[in-house]
Amino acid sequence: MLAGRIVDAARAEFAQHGSAGTTIRAVARAADVDPALVYHYFGSKEGLLDAATNPPQRWLESVARTWTTPVPQLGTALLRLMLGAWADDEIGPVLRAVLQTAAHEPSTREKLRRVVEGQLMGVSQLGADAADRRKRSGLISSQIMGLAMMRYVWQIEPLASMSDDEIVAAVAPNLQRYVDGDLG
Amino acid sequence: MLAGRIVDAARAEFAQHGSAGTTIRAVARAADVDPALVYHYFGSKEGLLDAATNPPQRWLESVARTWTTPVPQLGTALLRLMLGAWADDEIGPVLRAVLQTAAHEPSTREKLRRVVEGQLMGVSQLGADAADRRKRSGLISSQIMGLAMMRYVWQIEPLASMSDDEIVAAVAPNLQRYVDGDLG
Repeated sequence: MLAGRIVDAARAEFAQHGSAGTTIRAVARAADVDPALVYHYFGSKEGLLDAATNPPQRWLESVARTWTTPVPQLGTALLRLMLGAWADDEIGPVLRAVLQTAAHEPSTREKLRRVVEGQLMGVSQLGADAADRRKRSGLISSQIMGLAMMRYVWQIEPLASMSDDEIVAAVAPNLQRYVDGDLG
Repeated sequence: MLAGRIVDAARAEFAQHGSAGTTIRAVARAADVDPALVYHYFGSKEGLLDAATNPPQRWLESVARTWTTPVPQLGTALLRLMLGAWADDEIGPVLRAVLQTAAHEPSTREKLRRVVEGQLMGVSQLGADAADRRKRSGLISSQIMGLAMMRYVWQIEPLASMSDDEIVAAVAPNLQRYVDGDLG
């Protein structure tokens, strides 16, 4: 419980100030705990940053499960997965922290890169071969990440206020083209 | 010249540390000038942040010009505009600084929002009415911003290394659907 409260506070601090601008002391204050407790649980600021930006296991499992969707429905399934994750009380704040921190923190960017290249690109039924699969996965990620930035992080209208169903009607066919369309 | 050197240094500092973690003193040191000169040119840290994240006039004009492209070629034209801007020695670093700083700096996010909602969504030939135009512009931006994050800011493969022509073949048809396709 205490560790969870510290990680929540750390997420907000890292997202706003980056690693350079964040101190263990400030995180401890925001979480209303003694700084010694933060060191006890996480060892160092680097350990705390790592914990604060780790995608929840539950989310990685739902990603893996979604990749088993039949190909003709994969565009819609991936989009619904993303919309559900951002609306989730546990997963949404982590995704927000990762995207905000990755903008200015090389180690988090490296982690985002590993997650996208590995976990998110790991589906075996996509593409004609490994190179084609990586390309399609990257293009899918580009649309999903851009939508997440506009809708949730930057909150730019009208994307921020559109219903999930409107978003799916508008965006899923584009994702589906990246899944199984002719990419030239 | 000196003002330009200061702005270049400020862009790098803001992108890495955010406004909270950036000092006039650090920017002056990076630009190899006296801090008093930074105050002379920009008045305050807020003035400096504003100058560092202002899109160059030349770029805003090329955006406006691109919006006059005939509708059937608009998807490709917008994508070529973006690829050219990131490759431009003057414009690329500003775009990078805006995207990196907007992640954790509310005033820059507000500016990005104004630029996207105003300048980028200002084309009159797009959509059936104002609401439809704003929706299409937002969707176009979501794909372009996500591609820019993946290819240039996070540098995730294979998008980071694909040629401009490969990117256009893969992505332009998706943008074109947002321009004049049925969005459900």
